[in-house]
Amino acid sequence: MRKILVIGAGRSSSSLITYLLDKSSTESLHVTVADVSLETAQRKVNNHPNAIAIALDIFNEKERVEAVQAADIVVSMLPARFHIEVAKDCVKYKKHMVTASYVSKAMEALDQQAKDNGLVFMNEIGVDPGIDHMSAMQVIDRIRDNGGKMILFESFTGGLVAPQSDTNLWNYKFTWNPRNVVVAGQGGAAKFIQEGTYKYIPYNRLFRRTEFLRIEGHGSFEAYANRDSLKYRSVYGLDDILTLYRGTMRRIGFSRAWNMFVQLGMTDDSYILEGSEHMSYRDFVNAFLPYSPTDSVELKLRHYLKIDQDDIIWGKLIELDLFNANKKVGLKDATPAQMLQKILEASWTLDPNDKDMIVMYHKFGYEVNGEKRQIDANMVVLGDDQTYTAMAKTVGLPVAIATLQILNKKITTPGVQIPISKEVYTPILKELEEYGIIFKEQKVPYLGYNPNNVGG
Amino acid sequence: MRKILVIGAGRSSSSLITYLLDKSSTESLHVTVADVSLETAQRKVNNHPNAIAIALDIFNEKERVEAVQAADIVVSMLPARFHIEVAKDCVKYKKHMVTASYVSKAMEALDQQAKDNGLVFMNEIGVDPGIDHMSAMQVIDRIRDNGGKMILFESFTGGLVAPQSDTNLWNYKFTWNPRNVVVAGQGGAAKFIQEGTYKYIPYNRLFRRTEFLRIEGHGSFEAYANRDSLKYRSVYGLDDILTLYRGTMRRIGFSRAWNMFVQLGMTDDSYILEGSEHMSYRDFVNAFLPYSPTDSVELKLRHYLKIDQDDIIWGKLIELDLFNANKKVGLKDATPAQMLQKILEASWTLDPNDKDMIVMYHKFGYEVNGEKRQIDANMVVLGDDQTYTAMAKTVGLPVAIATLQILNKKITTPGVQIPISKEVYTPILKELEEYGIIFKEQKVPYLGYNPNNVGG
Repeated sequence: MRKILVIGAGRSSSSLITYLLDKSSTESLHVTVADVSLETAQRKVNNHPNAIAIALDIFNEKERVEAVQAADIVVSMLPARFHIEVAKDCVKYKKHMVTASYVSKAMEALDQQAKDNGLVFMNEIGVDPGIDHMSAMQVIDRIRDNGGKMILFESFTGGLVAPQSDTNLWNYKFTWNPRNVVVAGQGGAAKFIQEGTYKYIPYNRLFRRTEFLRIEGHGSFEAYANRDSLKYRSVYGLDDILTLYRGTMRRIGFSRAWNMFVQLGMTDDSYILEGSEHMSYRDFVNAFLPYSPTDSVELKLRHYLKIDQDDIIWGKLIELDLFNANKKVGLKDATPAQMLQKILEASWTLDPNDKDMIVMYHKFGYEVNGEKRQIDANMVVLGDDQTYTAMAKTVGLPVAIATLQILNKKITTPGVQIPISKEVYTPILKELEEYGIIFKEQKVPYLGYNPNNVGG
Repeated sequence: MRKILVIGAGRSSSSLITYLLDKSSTESLHVTVADVSLETAQRKVNNHPNAIAIALDIFNEKERVEAVQAADIVVSMLPARFHIEVAKDCVKYKKHMVTASYVSKAMEALDQQAKDNGLVFMNEIGVDPGIDHMSAMQVIDRIRDNGGKMILFESFTGGLVAPQSDTNLWNYKFTWNPRNVVVAGQGGAAKFIQEGTYKYIPYNRLFRRTEFLRIEGHGSFEAYANRDSLKYRSVYGLDDILTLYRGTMRRIGFSRAWNMFVQLGMTDDSYILEGSEHMSYRDFVNAFLPYSPTDSVELKLRHYLKIDQDDIIWGKLIELDLFNANKKVGLKDATPAQMLQKILEASWTLDPNDKDMIVMYHKFGYEVNGEKRQIDANMVVLGDDQTYTAMAKTVGLPVAIATLQILNKKITTPGVQIPISKEVYTPILKELEEYGIIFKEQKVPYLGYNPNNVGG
């Protein structure tokens, strides 16, 4: 039996653990599921004969070392900041390691030691980062293998609510960490390249410069720019590319409405609101509007943001019950962002039967034989239920498949890495298709940002 | 002879040193002017018989201690962060000290030692902070002495160009540190109280929520809110006040035009623009606008910010030559804020004959015998030339007068302090009038923010 240690049995581990358990007999796997809560681990193991659940406090060195020593490979599904202690143990006791998280500087520093010991430390192999890397590099490598030169790459991902559960005016519910949604885009201008020119969007304009995207059979989406679209430019070998843009997908109209919160200052997480524990929803809104003894909060807001009488974004505020003077937010010493999150959670939390959806959209522009061409590729994954969510599947399955590939010596190149080589992405993308995680590609006319290119 | 050490002979020391030299014979003063540049110090001393110029590097402990030991009182006109070493010497060698800077935590910590040694450490005795404290407390104390209860205090200050030198469409030139103007208002929401309600303005709205002010004989002004209007609430004894607002004054229309830079993201000081050393003015503007192969930067900007064809703010951009494709900004690895500052300095630098102006405006709302009343007070000071600027006069004269008052034992209360007691402000405000620094007061109807109060 090959021994796999999975640390962290939270929401995103469901599909991962199920995959490994389903393969445990044919592949001779023994899976140890470790969590700070034994009960959480037990629920995931569900008395499977090839698995055990253990309680593990990763800050308890003895417990942690014992668990790592007993394994052949370690999968860490902990929050990103907790990987490093586990990773150091993996170096020390010569175990492979897999995570779905961004490579931290501390993790990067272990690269040489991992290589010296022939260890694969695979990171960023969830959905975003993960499937985005693999699906992008597969097409980019193919274009290059056929003599093409990349001139444009745009990539968009969104965690959304499935159409059958899409029941509010925002076409949005929280399917992942709400806090990340509320503070998204803060901390500096969004940076990208369009047709060879660096472009910058400040936070206060971010949600007003969206791109539109259509996915056959799934309708229309919009995307706002990520903070740093250039992060993987060199890693993908795109140093000379003219257009490079990464973004976050939402249903059409979300960003324009979200911009109201940005303009009011409700997404600010940098200061405490005076007397937040006594504030009603209405008080919260009014804190960002000028004082008036006679005018209503509603009219002040309409005037402040220049919202026309018949503008549909107004209904989105009403739906959130934002002007209710009797409903307290109920948070002490809270920042505006924390107050807003609480208000949104009251409206945007998934019902027990709600399903989520992950969408991804890539555009690849390239030149071959003096001709400009474009390939668009997209992926839509729906959740099965609230255990096997689209998020759990798209994060967990690539992690699980990579783990097995490493054990089976199909992935052997050692070192701290992300899944951008053919050795890694080819088998994983292929197997993901069996689980309904499929990219649809189509050739489209190359547009770039130049209307003269239409039909070109 | 009483010996005064003035450290720092920069622009803001002119009026200060001239005052002390003018009084040196009648008051038996000997003034030592110390500066890191001997030449700068010599120029200020100008061979006056009761003064000497010395070169002083305040980081050279021996030099610094020698200079402090030789004095009876020390005036530090250094940048605020450099006061503390001098202040510690003043405690050690039992010298009084005067600065125009905000009280730092380190300075505050010397309070008990100053008291124990009977030393007056007077701070915040320039114009803002300084004259604002004194002129406000004089009226507030008088209202209270007459049985009034303060319900509103608003206070505005602006460093502007004098009307005769006001030659551009912005009605603005740099009369002080340009960098502070470019990054003004950043770093958090502006916070204040209106009619008992806390209000917050995010940076992206700050320059669109101005108040208008009129000063008889000097025309109209506007003011945008300072970051923290509540800073002196307790110090002024205004803990129960309903409205407290502090702001920065500009000529009408400045803020609405400045907001264009904010919206574009040009005031951001947190990241480096790629290739800034090669950027023309036009490239700089274009970096914040969407790419288009056909549309002009001008039209993209107009569309992005929704600027009507006949809007006068357009001329303000043209005046800055902002769309010039042939003029390079000429800064390497610069932030947007640094680039913008360089562009503005090319247009907004004072000519040799230009004069500056300092304006201050207070509103005091109070209740007495069940009746609401209001007093407005304002001050307008014009510079004489580029040596005796309004800034140099309003910063330096209170410092100089306070220094002499301390030497003459008219100000005796020891400790680290700011000028808010009658003992301090009464003689200083009185003497400032001889130098044309005069507050004009008038009774006005109490308005607050309530139109029902009109005529009340």
